[in-house]
Formats: sequence, structure tokens, C-alpha cells
Amino acid sequence: MAHIAVPPDLPGIIGLLAYRPETARPLSELAQVLLRGVSTLSAGERELIAAYVSHRNECYFCSSSHSAAAKYLLDGNKALVEAVKNNVGTAPVSEKLKALLRIAGKVQMDGRTVTETDVQQARALGATDQELHDTVLIAAAFCMYNRYVDGLATWTPREEAVYDSIGKRLAREGYGKG
Amino acid sequence: MAHIAVPPDLPGIIGLLAYRPETARPLSELAQVLLRGVSTLSAGERELIAAYVSHRNECYFCSSSHSAAAKYLLDGNKALVEAVKNNVGTAPVSEKLKALLRIAGKVQMDGRTVTETDVQQARALGATDQELHDTVLIAAAFCMYNRYVDGLATWTPREEAVYDSIGKRLAREGYGKG
Repeated sequence: MAHIAVPPDLPGIIGLLAYRPETARPLSELAQVLLRGVSTLSAGERELIAAYVSHRNECYFCSSSHSAAAKYLLDGNKALVEAVKNNVGTAPVSEKLKALLRIAGKVQMDGRTVTETDVQQARALGATDQELHDTVLIAAAFCMYNRYVDGLATWTPREEAVYDSIGKRLAREGYGKG
Repeated sequence: MAHIAVPPDLPGIIGLLAYRPETARPLSELAQVLLRGVSTLSAGERELIAAYVSHRNECYFCSSSHSAAAKYLLDGNKALVEAVKNNVGTAPVSEKLKALLRIAGKVQMDGRTVTETDVQQARALGATDQELHDTVLIAAAFCMYNRYVDGLATWTPREEAVYDSIGKRLAREGYGKG
């Protein structure tokens, strides 16, 4: 049971957004801008970063939801999503995205661990300033969403079908603001 | 030097907000709702939570800025702000705020470490659902802001006067949205 009285039928962050609309608004708008706004990274690539960081934070609800969203945005390629979570180095994604995922992984631990060399390597593979900015902020934002969901012990269904449905909706409709 | 081309004269998150207005809007609105919105926690108490989490994340810019903001909102009591950062258990704040700060400290590490006992202790000292919610989300949000500021290696002045000026402005004007 969640630590506070959220609507009992709404899992994870969905219950928290319903509980406190004043914070739901900027939280949703931030996700929408970062994951669906104008960008040279595809929505699928950005959901991969979100899923990867949530996986590293071991947030079951967010990791499952954003893995499913990434799958729907990447032509149903669930194997690719799992490959990224398991080992960025050997995953079948572009070298540029690997460099960005490595930066996201460092941000997940501690922002200060991102080095000038990490950034130069990503740039040499084509990463732009905005891609670097958004990668760092997506990773940082999921360190927030993950802690919010787990810190309040929200309801975490274990059925894959629940997350498949959430992921399909996120892929189709996004986050509603921004 | 920052990892990306932010305005060179704007330190910390201030440069990042100027660089990307689309994300600045929800980031500012979230801070405004959480730290200045309607709450039974005072703005000073909420800035203490922000300073405490930023201190634990060793984010010099955020820790210094929010420590200064807390000081201005707590009648200039800098010793109290330093006491909270150094040792919550012996700091001269209410037992309820100590219990909330302990929860914030756990969220800073990993949301899953917050226990039902932590929450019951805070409730027994008078904490409400919204206070618990907002404490967890303030702590989670500063895990984002801190990583954003440090992950992009933003300019970090070392002069205390800079942060005193930022803190005074935050105490007086807040975060501009929400």
C-alpha cells in the first residue's frame, strides 16, 4: 500500500498525478517537452534513455512503463529495448546513442562523473548541444520520477499486460502537456 | 567551462534555464509549487529540505543557493541551516521536521529505502499526507536539479556573496511560475 492516500486503483505515478494536480502539471509538461518535444533524437531513442535510467534505479513501475513505450515507438522491437538495459556496449543502437546512454548512466549515479572526454566522444559521433542537454536532463528527471514513485511506495502491478497497455498509450498520446 | 554553450555569465541552473526555455518553464513551475505554493510547511522549512538534499548530493551551486534562501526565510538564522546540513538529529528544528528530513535523506539515496515505520513516525509527530508527499517530491526533484547542474558542468562561483544574492532573490521573488 502506498505511504499516502492516493486513489487505490491507479498504479505508480498515475496515482500521484491524480493526488496532487498542482505538481502533476509541471511534471507532465516536463516529460512531454523532453520525450515528445521538438528534437533531433527520436521519441523512441528518448524513451530508451528513460527506460535505461529507470532500470538502473531499479524502479519497476517506471522501467516497465518506459520500456513498453520505447518498444511501441521502435516498431515493436522489444529485444532492442532489453539489449540496451542489459548492456549498452553491445546493444544494436547507433554509436552516438551509445555515447549518450553512457552519459545518462553517469548522471544516474552522480552528475559530477560526466567528463569532458565523455562529452567530446559523443560530439565526435554527431551529438549536438541540445542532444547533450536533453540527455542529461532526461536522466536527471528520471532520477526524480523514480524516487517519487518508489519513495511513496506506490502500487506496482507485476502483470506485463498492464505495462504494455501503459506503454501503448504513452507511445500514442504522450504526456498530455507541453 | 560548461559542457554545452550556455550564456557564459549565468552560473549554475540559471544558465541552463536561459539556454532552454521550453524545459525552464516546467522546471521553474515545479520549484514554485513545491517551495512556495500553498502548504502547511513554511517556505523556510521547504528550502531547508532542498538545501539538505543538495548538500547530501554535494551539489555546490544548489546547496549554497538554497542554504542562502533558507537563511533569508528563517530570520537570517544561518547557524540553523548549517546545523541541519551537518546533523539533523541535533539541529534546533521541530521533531516533525526532523522526521521529514530523515525521509528526504532516504529518498536522496533510493526511494525504496523509505519504510512504513519512517512514515508512521512522521505522522505521529503531526505530518500530514501532503507534507509527506511534498517532502518526497522536493527531495526527488533536487536529485534532478542537482544532477542537471553538475552533469552539464555549469559555472560554479565560489564567492559566498554570489549565493547570498541569489538566496535573497529566491526568498523575495520565488521561482517565477506556478
